[in-house]
Amino acid sequence: MLTRNQAAQMLATLDRVLILCHRNPDGDTLGSGFALCRAFLNQGKKARVFCNDPIPEKFGYLIPEQEDFVPLHVISVDVADPALLGPNTEKQLASLPPVELSIDHHPTHKQFAQALYLEADSASCCEIVRELLREMGWEIDKGIADCLYTGLATDTGCFKFSNTSPRTHRIAAEMIELGADHTRINKVMFDTVTFAELALEQLALEQMWMSDDHKIAVLTITTDMLRQTGASEAELDRITALTRKISGVEIGITIKQRGEADYKVSLRTGETVSAADICANFGGGGHARAAGCQFTLNDPVEIREKLVEAVYKTVGEEAGQ
Amino acid sequence: MLTRNQAAQMLATLDRVLILCHRNPDGDTLGSGFALCRAFLNQGKKARVFCNDPIPEKFGYLIPEQEDFVPLHVISVDVADPALLGPNTEKQLASLPPVELSIDHHPTHKQFAQALYLEADSASCCEIVRELLREMGWEIDKGIADCLYTGLATDTGCFKFSNTSPRTHRIAAEMIELGADHTRINKVMFDTVTFAELALEQLALEQMWMSDDHKIAVLTITTDMLRQTGASEAELDRITALTRKISGVEIGITIKQRGEADYKVSLRTGETVSAADICANFGGGGHARAAGCQFTLNDPVEIREKLVEAVYKTVGEEAGQ
Repeated sequence: MLTRNQAAQMLATLDRVLILCHRNPDGDTLGSGFALCRAFLNQGKKARVFCNDPIPEKFGYLIPEQEDFVPLHVISVDVADPALLGPNTEKQLASLPPVELSIDHHPTHKQFAQALYLEADSASCCEIVRELLREMGWEIDKGIADCLYTGLATDTGCFKFSNTSPRTHRIAAEMIELGADHTRINKVMFDTVTFAELALEQLALEQMWMSDDHKIAVLTITTDMLRQTGASEAELDRITALTRKISGVEIGITIKQRGEADYKVSLRTGETVSAADICANFGGGGHARAAGCQFTLNDPVEIREKLVEAVYKTVGEEAGQ
Repeated sequence: MLTRNQAAQMLATLDRVLILCHRNPDGDTLGSGFALCRAFLNQGKKARVFCNDPIPEKFGYLIPEQEDFVPLHVISVDVADPALLGPNTEKQLASLPPVELSIDHHPTHKQFAQALYLEADSASCCEIVRELLREMGWEIDKGIADCLYTGLATDTGCFKFSNTSPRTHRIAAEMIELGADHTRINKVMFDTVTFAELALEQLALEQMWMSDDHKIAVLTITTDMLRQTGASEAELDRITALTRKISGVEIGITIKQRGEADYKVSLRTGETVSAADICANFGGGGHARAAGCQFTLNDPVEIREKLVEAVYKTVGEEAGQ
């Protein structure tokens, strides 16, 4: 593991750099990637970002003009596991030098690059990029400030989640001073809901299942409901987050149909029971407060019953410890 | 208008202080009031907070043990207008010394106290209280940090709104360092929705009216709907905010019935037209992005039609300027 100074020194020497983001890109991997890309470009160097998947339209403002060139160096940002690079990125990498440096903030990081700079207690990867730029003495312009603010805000639920640290707030202050368009970014990231999302939420809430003690809430989203409302897979996040917000609910479960006899489950819990432990009953896993698993069953009611049984079993076991 | 130093010097001399909050209290008026109250108590002085209305349960953690005493001094926090003190507070004031000092951040402040300390560009009154405590050299303990964080977060939509400044973020960083329980506060303030709120949202969305161009969304909440769902007046905020979040909607209107032929309208706009200008057509007012007005009519459909007409008229006028 490199020190911050070593990572900064290494970055400062690079030119013709390809910066890799993780698949299904979010504001932090894109914010980190394009911030570094813009910083290289400002130094008169060549750099460009590559992601396995298309970049969602709402992140368009992050992207600078990027020239085409044959990369001499490859680095990655916010990629916790080589499996998260994705098949398109793997294909690119086949004809390129190996990944030289990984910059990441995931405590579960599986090292795949030649060198790693990890700050496992950082709320976002963008915070680390900010500290590296400081170490290199490279200036932050408005474009970079927009990128870094985006990662800070999106990885902390707009400074709402427990991972938000004093440093997160101080860097946000600095980015606003440097011109980050925080109002517009927050509006797009946090205050926009589509008709399809609202319609899907309506349908799902009409059929919400609650346990008698109102501590478990289960929403089921079928492919029929997606068709009916025109909502996309990407528009399910709002609903997944909704169950756990309901006053009194300790365990929020969303059962999403992906095909016939193919269901994906997202589970969110409060402070009383581990979501990962519940999902482990079905070969799934994740974090203490958010985890997932899959089922190859035909009937979502049967899946719900299995999950609820596992919840009570796990709550009992953890209470008995 | 006092300078910050003058206000701090004045505060520092007070004892036996009654601190007034505005009616329908929110996180900023209560956070400011109880932060100052706790700071006085820590100095061995007597202080207590008074509010016209009961303090919502979710703000219970702000309240310290407060002794009863006959006040010698009265100050107010976050009260923009004497009308916002409320009748119960007015009754109290009849047998008390006049309000000596108002601490506020509303640009529309109508002076009613003997002295005023106003920072009209501050996102929250709690930021001002923090600066005054700094000026006085009074320490901030965990209890005060919880109070001040609460006002910072609630008045900025958890650092999401345009009023959030670099100072807001820096004070938030400091409050977290001083022990503010930011995770729990944010969960209660921003990530909790009641069954009644969800049920009301369901009902309201089923009957949402949209203009043909999908730029105006109108939700109507009748007293019948409140009865049917068990939702209270205080649970309407989520819905008022919802209309403007819908992708593409520029003007979000919520028409709330308060009694027979008694409707209150909340209007939220994007950057294209002034909410205050639209409401001015009906004797109402407010801010550029959020304003309100009232109607003594029987039919909410008639109210909607009048509002929509005023929207197009105002958009036309402002486009012609």
